[in-house]
Amino acid sequence: MIRKNQHGSRFSPHRPSKPGLPQDSKPANKQNASGSDRLEQLIQKATNLTSSLPTSRYTASRQNLRIIPMGGIEEVGENMTVLEYGDDLIVIDMGLAFPDDTMPGVDYIIPDTKWLEQNKRRIRGVIITHGHLDHIGAVPYILPKLGDPPVYTMALTAGFIKKRLEEFGLVGRSRINVLTKDDTLALGSFKIRFFRLNHSIPDSVGLSITTPVGQVVYATDWKFDHTPADGKPTEFDKIAKFGAEGVLLLMSDSTNSVKPGYCISERELGITIDRTFSEIKGRIIFANFATSISRIQQVFNAAAKYNRKIIVTGRSMVNNIEIALSLGYLKIQPKIVIKSEQAKKYPDNQIVVLTTGSQGEDAAGLARIARGDHKTIKIKKGDTAIVSASPIPGNERAVAAVLSNLTRLGAHVIYNKTLDIHTSGHAHQEELKLMIALTKPKFFMPIHGEHHMIVTHAELGKTMGIPEQNIFSLDNGQILEINSAREAKSVEDPKISSGYVFIDGLGVGDVGEVVIRDRQVMAQDGMFVIIVTLDRRAGKLINQPDIISRGFIYMKGNDDLIREVKHEVRKLVESKGKEKLEPNWAFLRNIIRDEIGEYLYQKTERRPMVLPVIIEV
Amino acid sequence: MIRKNQHGSRFSPHRPSKPGLPQDSKPANKQNASGSDRLEQLIQKATNLTSSLPTSRYTASRQNLRIIPMGGIEEVGENMTVLEYGDDLIVIDMGLAFPDDTMPGVDYIIPDTKWLEQNKRRIRGVIITHGHLDHIGAVPYILPKLGDPPVYTMALTAGFIKKRLEEFGLVGRSRINVLTKDDTLALGSFKIRFFRLNHSIPDSVGLSITTPVGQVVYATDWKFDHTPADGKPTEFDKIAKFGAEGVLLLMSDSTNSVKPGYCISERELGITIDRTFSEIKGRIIFANFATSISRIQQVFNAAAKYNRKIIVTGRSMVNNIEIALSLGYLKIQPKIVIKSEQAKKYPDNQIVVLTTGSQGEDAAGLARIARGDHKTIKIKKGDTAIVSASPIPGNERAVAAVLSNLTRLGAHVIYNKTLDIHTSGHAHQEELKLMIALTKPKFFMPIHGEHHMIVTHAELGKTMGIPEQNIFSLDNGQILEINSAREAKSVEDPKISSGYVFIDGLGVGDVGEVVIRDRQVMAQDGMFVIIVTLDRRAGKLINQPDIISRGFIYMKGNDDLIREVKHEVRKLVESKGKEKLEPNWAFLRNIIRDEIGEYLYQKTERRPMVLPVIIEV
Repeated sequence: MIRKNQHGSRFSPHRPSKPGLPQDSKPANKQNASGSDRLEQLIQKATNLTSSLPTSRYTASRQNLRIIPMGGIEEVGENMTVLEYGDDLIVIDMGLAFPDDTMPGVDYIIPDTKWLEQNKRRIRGVIITHGHLDHIGAVPYILPKLGDPPVYTMALTAGFIKKRLEEFGLVGRSRINVLTKDDTLALGSFKIRFFRLNHSIPDSVGLSITTPVGQVVYATDWKFDHTPADGKPTEFDKIAKFGAEGVLLLMSDSTNSVKPGYCISERELGITIDRTFSEIKGRIIFANFATSISRIQQVFNAAAKYNRKIIVTGRSMVNNIEIALSLGYLKIQPKIVIKSEQAKKYPDNQIVVLTTGSQGEDAAGLARIARGDHKTIKIKKGDTAIVSASPIPGNERAVAAVLSNLTRLGAHVIYNKTLDIHTSGHAHQEELKLMIALTKPKFFMPIHGEHHMIVTHAELGKTMGIPEQNIFSLDNGQILEINSAREAKSVEDPKISSGYVFIDGLGVGDVGEVVIRDRQVMAQDGMFVIIVTLDRRAGKLINQPDIISRGFIYMKGNDDLIREVKHEVRKLVESKGKEKLEPNWAFLRNIIRDEIGEYLYQKTERRPMVLPVIIEV
Repeated sequence: MIRKNQHGSRFSPHRPSKPGLPQDSKPANKQNASGSDRLEQLIQKATNLTSSLPTSRYTASRQNLRIIPMGGIEEVGENMTVLEYGDDLIVIDMGLAFPDDTMPGVDYIIPDTKWLEQNKRRIRGVIITHGHLDHIGAVPYILPKLGDPPVYTMALTAGFIKKRLEEFGLVGRSRINVLTKDDTLALGSFKIRFFRLNHSIPDSVGLSITTPVGQVVYATDWKFDHTPADGKPTEFDKIAKFGAEGVLLLMSDSTNSVKPGYCISERELGITIDRTFSEIKGRIIFANFATSISRIQQVFNAAAKYNRKIIVTGRSMVNNIEIALSLGYLKIQPKIVIKSEQAKKYPDNQIVVLTTGSQGEDAAGLARIARGDHKTIKIKKGDTAIVSASPIPGNERAVAAVLSNLTRLGAHVIYNKTLDIHTSGHAHQEELKLMIALTKPKFFMPIHGEHHMIVTHAELGKTMGIPEQNIFSLDNGQILEINSAREAKSVEDPKISSGYVFIDGLGVGDVGEVVIRDRQVMAQDGMFVIIVTLDRRAGKLINQPDIISRGFIYMKGNDDLIREVKHEVRKLVESKGKEKLEPNWAFLRNIIRDEIGEYLYQKTERRPMVLPVIIEV
């Protein structure tokens, strides 16, 4: 009556898994095809491709500009785009994504760069738009595989990248070139100019890329903020100038494309933070992203105003504040930061704890504080915990659990549902429209978001007068090709893989689809190993079969079931095991797997992974 | 450098797991203690309890009223409360909850009712407040274990319960008594009166329970809606009258206690639905909860107005519409419902598909349509899919994946972020305050929600003038005891277990903490079985050790690692396996588990479940 996966089970394959494999075009196939089906489809697809290549007025040529999204247009994260013209390649951003619940045990996801590795001698440079992990996180994994090409970026971003390379022992291999937003960069056939954008981290830049076929405007993560925390608004003048020069293609951030209106300003948020600080009597525990330098600045401002000292906790928070301070991106009052040991000297209403963990991450500061196992910070009644972030989709329950634990310890909690204590770094619909109005692009390609966000952004483009056939809502690995006659077309190139590479522990890419699928199965219903010890010559059972099972059923309470299974196995071996029909007893193993699997399902409606092992003695 | 669980891994223990085990009071202990640690704490706690029992002016007695929450105050779902006075017990609601991502493979969670089973002869009746699964879902699991006590509820709820019992082959065992909201029910020492509340399902009632120590008002899931879809608003007059009589204790819904202001009316939402229908040119695919009869009514109204026929799909949607229709809770136009085969006869702008799956559930209508494997409904360009629900926390990514798949097939999508196409059934802060103002309770106990929601609701109570010591933010299994002098105290009773019972396939309660933990470990890093075949007498290896591993690493690409492990195992057996020190080779098995586990961690930074098996021949 009750079937698996029917009611909100977390292991449903609701995201097409695709490590190392290019995408099928139909969701139906994506989600349901078994490994071998998919392989077949791929072969078919590869075969079809040749015949479906552009035939009419469109001619594929080295004189075409190719926009190759390696990641970030089917998900929020792992942003990476390659531009190709003639022999030249440039790479924009190298981000990571966090796994979803269909990828158990995976730490991060990065784009599959096999094709790029094969073409590394053609890479003229890597441009990084800003210092968030979904734009720089994969740098230490990918850069060495590409032969350590030079990196070009702004000062703060460079600081963050250097720190990350340092953590991986890779400092000094790639040259990290620090530019200013008014520099012009020439990389092969590409001329790159920069313009300042607003985002939750300073030094975010958009790109104007002049190519032989026209100008591409690359608007990475951004919002328009007329009153940003650092007082440095978007360079509208530059964007308007680029627009006047003629924009062939606009690529723009879709993260908030589903949200109407405008994103609230970081300065307005500062007012909320100020008011909140003014009202709180006890200690304040303030959690936000370690990369949100602007938010951190506002916390320092409010703390100084209300005469509070700040304890900084969480490794990345400490690191990033150091980097931002040393480069002048953060202005703080002398002696405002104290060590936690000094906290005793101050009354509670003079303390702010600034911490990581706004996403509910287990190992981060806030979760440790909430569990009561932070080394120095113990929650007590009268404390107020402020979570100044929205949960990234998938983190909602983890955040709620942290909030519950905090309240259980006596803290009052403030978060985005109770108060507007967070503003997004991504443009809402009216801002997105303004970007289109300023750049007036011929072609439009929404980037950075899940497919439904990309499509919603595409619809906004249509309402702004861009013809539907000039808008490209692509998938990772699909290529936008524009020829010298300024005609654009989406094409696929079987040589370019667009899969995910999973990072798990020390392994990069050694956890693939098969391993993940096995983890899913075992998480769902556990596993059931059946060990059959056979006399090599007689093919007869020597011992009673052994059963090792975990995650399936509580073994001690189910002696009968186990006894019955052993009996069934014995019967199977006696009737089918007489002759070793195939090497390694494949036939007998298959029979045991199928029959016992079915037997267990009949008894329990569960399908553990059944693993028969035949030991020959 | 990269550690497990550090960055948003889904298997973090962010919810205390507690099947079958009562709760510790500190989150720190809850989350970190290993099985044996927890057992120790429990023993300690049981010992402490006797000494910490009320000593001063408070006397435990059978003449006390005891409020025993079995579920629903540490989570959204599995709502169930028991009231005890003298020899009498009454039960309110029997709900289920959906598992979170720390409970892989679990279908549902229901409250642990062991204590109630032992006291079943004292149960005077079961009262069900409304027909949602988090209030009736556990009925077929629990009712038979309690000796099929009589159930009392309103007509629509009774219809839903009967259907559910029918699905489990349990019809006719418990008597399902249909009452009206103006009936008075006497069950032992309790007199129960009802008052109509608004919620997203008709026939939702609150309870006034007169007990020998005073009146308890039980406000289950509710909102105040002055213009509900069925035109039947909350009975404010009754609530005010109960308030005037004197309310000893108010128990009230905390689901939206973090949300400021008022919840928008179902009628206002109807206007949005109407406008949306008026604007859409193609087919409409409308997904919502199958139990949201009011929302379904509004869809029928809008469809009729704009001359559209309705195709109903999804088993529970079909069932519930049938029940609501037969009982007169849904008024629909003749011939408006058509079979999907008839759809061809109508142009697209005359079709609405009403479907389940608004939570992104894999097996429900909308996900099947979005994957392209629904039997009769195929998405085409021009279709508009409307998801009229908020994702239950934890379902966000599943919903987003369904939206992306729909857009991939060419549909336009409308959901709660793009338009206010959903309103909650739960009161916001201003409504919650009004309930307190109307009932003026002496004691207040927030129910239905995660702990931080409960606490936020408690804080609202304080702002309304209820003294802090009269407000009880409890955990499941903690008991609120009120004596005849109208003094209240939270107590614990070691006899009353408050754990979760997991339902997985056919099994109820046979998946416990150990099984779940094993699933988590295997999901995280897989498993690694080492089979050592020993000569019984000589204690020597007969074969090369066998390795069976799944979910750990791609075996084919890692021959070297496997070879090295076999070598290590051989060394261990040769040095430690000489004598069979303990039965079943426990010593040797432990050594292999620890050493090889560590070896694998050094090589991979993963910790698969290592399972050594010794086969004696």
